[in-house]
Amino acid sequence: MKATVLVRPKEGILDPPGEAVEGSLRKLGFSVADARVGKVVDLELEAANADEARKQVEAMCEKLLANPLIETYEVVIDG
Amino acid sequence: MKATVLVRPKEGILDPPGEAVEGSLRKLGFSVADARVGKVVDLELEAANADEARKQVEAMCEKLLANPLIETYEVVIDG
Repeated sequence: MKATVLVRPKEGILDPPGEAVEGSLRKLGFSVADARVGKVVDLELEAANADEARKQVEAMCEKLLANPLIETYEVVIDG
Repeated sequence: MKATVLVRPKEGILDPPGEAVEGSLRKLGFSVADARVGKVVDLELEAANADEARKQVEAMCEKLLANPLIETYEVVIDG
């Protein structure tokens, strides 16, 4: 089963890569008010069904993929 | 207008962060067959409509956000 995880810096948390992207886009002439950079993790995992896959991926987020103090995560099960 | 860009390593391209995530998840006991790591960029930009926003964001991808030799990108306009 395939799953996609989006890990993003929480609002209010400093995001130096996002600031770098925002500054560079402005220098290139783009009208950007804000840019935030996070991670996308695409997973291929063994699970009996989508519910079980979601539980597993949420556990992966809590244990490794995201830092809950400063990041949020969003899980999409692709089937 | 808000837009989200997903930048991923192309298939067949080495992805050391993905290999590290895959190895760590396995050590934690998860049954993961594959993991690939890319970037998610959330943008707030000025654009008259969704079509114009998409054009701008695609130009940003070509010029800065993605390396077309080794990465693919996907643009989602959130409105």
